Amino acid sequence: LSDHARSWLEVARILDGGDVNGIICREELPTPALLLDLDAFEFNVQKMMSHVCEHNKTLRPHGKAHKSPEIAKYLITAGAVGACVAKLSEAEVFAEHGVGGLLVTTPVIGKYKIERALSLAKIQPDTILCVDNAQNVLDFSDAAVTRRLFLNLAIDLWIGRRTGVEPGAPSLALAQLIDSSPNVRFAGIQAYAGHASQVVGWEERRKTSRESMRQALDTKQLIEKNGMNVPLLTGGSTGTYDIDSQIEGMTELQPGSFIFMDVAYRRIGGKDGPVYQDFRNALSVLTTVISKPSRDIAVVDAGFKAFSTDQPVTPESKSAEGVVYRWAGDEHGILDLSQASQPLNVGSTVEFVIPHCDPTVNLYDRIFCLRGDTVEQVWSVAARGKCQ
Amino acid sequence: LSDHARSWLEVARILDGGDVNGIICREELPTPALLLDLDAFEFNVQKMMSHVCEHNKTLRPHGKAHKSPEIAKYLITAGAVGACVAKLSEAEVFAEHGVGGLLVTTPVIGKYKIERALSLAKIQPDTILCVDNAQNVLDFSDAAVTRRLFLNLAIDLWIGRRTGVEPGAPSLALAQLIDSSPNVRFAGIQAYAGHASQVVGWEERRKTSRESMRQALDTKQLIEKNGMNVPLLTGGSTGTYDIDSQIEGMTELQPGSFIFMDVAYRRIGGKDGPVYQDFRNALSVLTTVISKPSRDIAVVDAGFKAFSTDQPVTPESKSAEGVVYRWAGDEHGILDLSQASQPLNVGSTVEFVIPHCDPTVNLYDRIFCLRGDTVEQVWSVAARGKCQ
Repeated sequence: LSDHARSWLEVARILDGGDVNGIICREELPTPALLLDLDAFEFNVQKMMSHVCEHNKTLRPHGKAHKSPEIAKYLITAGAVGACVAKLSEAEVFAEHGVGGLLVTTPVIGKYKIERALSLAKIQPDTILCVDNAQNVLDFSDAAVTRRLFLNLAIDLWIGRRTGVEPGAPSLALAQLIDSSPNVRFAGIQAYAGHASQVVGWEERRKTSRESMRQALDTKQLIEKNGMNVPLLTGGSTGTYDIDSQIEGMTELQPGSFIFMDVAYRRIGGKDGPVYQDFRNALSVLTTVISKPSRDIAVVDAGFKAFSTDQPVTPESKSAEGVVYRWAGDEHGILDLSQASQPLNVGSTVEFVIPHCDPTVNLYDRIFCLRGDTVEQVWSVAARGKCQ
Repeated sequence: LSDHARSWLEVARILDGGDVNGIICREELPTPALLLDLDAFEFNVQKMMSHVCEHNKTLRPHGKAHKSPEIAKYLITAGAVGACVAKLSEAEVFAEHGVGGLLVTTPVIGKYKIERALSLAKIQPDTILCVDNAQNVLDFSDAAVTRRLFLNLAIDLWIGRRTGVEPGAPSLALAQLIDSSPNVRFAGIQAYAGHASQVVGWEERRKTSRESMRQALDTKQLIEKNGMNVPLLTGGSTGTYDIDSQIEGMTELQPGSFIFMDVAYRRIGGKDGPVYQDFRNALSVLTTVISKPSRDIAVVDAGFKAFSTDQPVTPESKSAEGVVYRWAGDEHGILDLSQASQPLNVGSTVEFVIPHCDPTVNLYDRIFCLRGDTVEQVWSVAARGKCQ
């Protein structure tokens, strides 16, 4: 398929030009390179979409996993109602690229960020922001009045272990404050049980998620009993999607990693066994052997700057069985080949399933999307680095 | 100093415009933000420069730490002979910005990368590439002949635990191959003892570095005895700069982290005590408290995407004493305030010394350079993400 007589300048021009379909093959990509297996990606999207439709939930996949407007739009075309984003600056990039239905899942704090949130809402008026304290509601309301705009505010519920207002009476009070403040609308509840998502073992995970979501349902009922409508109860993760979809009263799921998968998620265990394999490994990093100090040791060009290191797992070889990756600093990985199914020499490429998708994607500017062995699309990680 | 009546649009315009000197203060920056304390940075550069001058070594600071052409140029103005870079794509960015004296410290492998290396050498003919195997030398030579260019090749010595040719006879053979191959010149030896750089305890570190460098010196002598000139013996790190500078026969040091420092480096111990403090902490990340779930717990907007996680240390507060940072996922950090010297509330900013400088810098696009509390410069991390 590929014409290896091409020069790098030609390859670079094709990769930069956008219309790459079928011209460049995997082995021509500059390594380390972030790869997406489109067949696996499409399978994952289709499976999640079917699941939420069957259970009458909406899907707002979390964009912090991919940071790519192309992927956000792909998901919306497939049936998603929009995209969650972790941070305001991520939302700004998505909005600039025409992605609507944004839900900013982390509190937006500070004068300048509130000003930016209002500018965002002007471009994408259906944007929803999450709040967990009264002062933040008042600040949003004041700023919205001044700008003559309206903001949609959801209360962020403390059922995980990060942010949020206490369930029950404090939540009701915050919802009522939003309801009574000018230029802000009560949009519903975000209840994200972050600690449940990676509990090992499906039954244990179900128990953890159920306990957390019970508080969210009770709070929703309390607010409704007090005469307010709660149009949104959003939460859930790739680890709990088939647990939370069973919960009546939840309106929406916001998983992110299911489109890609990673080593960490596969280890949490599935409904039927020790490996969670509801979704396929679609994301990988292509590396090259750059040194071969001995017969059983190879050094690849990918270290801490090519794979995130936040999870206690290492990259797993997709190319050859029995290859064991060991961290070797910022720029290198060392491969133990003593049990490898095939020899690897200087110049060989090795593809790895990544330890944790979100922070790994955040290291790259582009995702090379492959159909089989050729590049079909090059998608931009346009919100990379946007953690503000 | 600062006019807080400014709008975000004005602040963003000033920060993007370059001529920011003294107009914007620390508290106006969007968090998480990467900060450089210019007084500390200048102290560090001056101290290292004086040290290498005293010991008659040249300094080629490692650019993988900062990935910023502005910093590379600053260092050259201060007396450095150029910049080391880990990868070819990093070198390309530096070269485009006019940085010369480049030494690419990792082997450059593959047809396209060799083609790119030649294009780089055309722009910056004093560029040095490292090789550790014969085929790579032949590939460079062939490509250089075809392009009618000349390449400077140093042999990368296996004295650390990553890449390199064995010291002694194999190194001599590789040097001779370079010497006898057309269009490539033998530039010298790279001997980087990566495993020595973070050995805890100065004496132990000295022992480890000396043992490694002994092999480099022997190899250098062997090559010289065989009638070749070895103009360069480069190596060393921030951890061993004052050890390796004592070694006669080493011509050049290539430390990188000394300009910034980090928590990991401070823990390796110094000549006089358990904290390595030859250089000052110049780099930090500014965060904001975005939630306050209880009196003693605050949540900041900085997690795995704001700090690298490859070292077994956590960010250390510079703002308030007794604040303990705990990882809380991709986007959050949890602060234990039970021993804090001052209260922190929603909206408070907290500045942290970073765990490990190189991979943390690689998460950001800009470095805000402060003199006291105001931004004096905004430098670009132009080679961020360039791990190819």
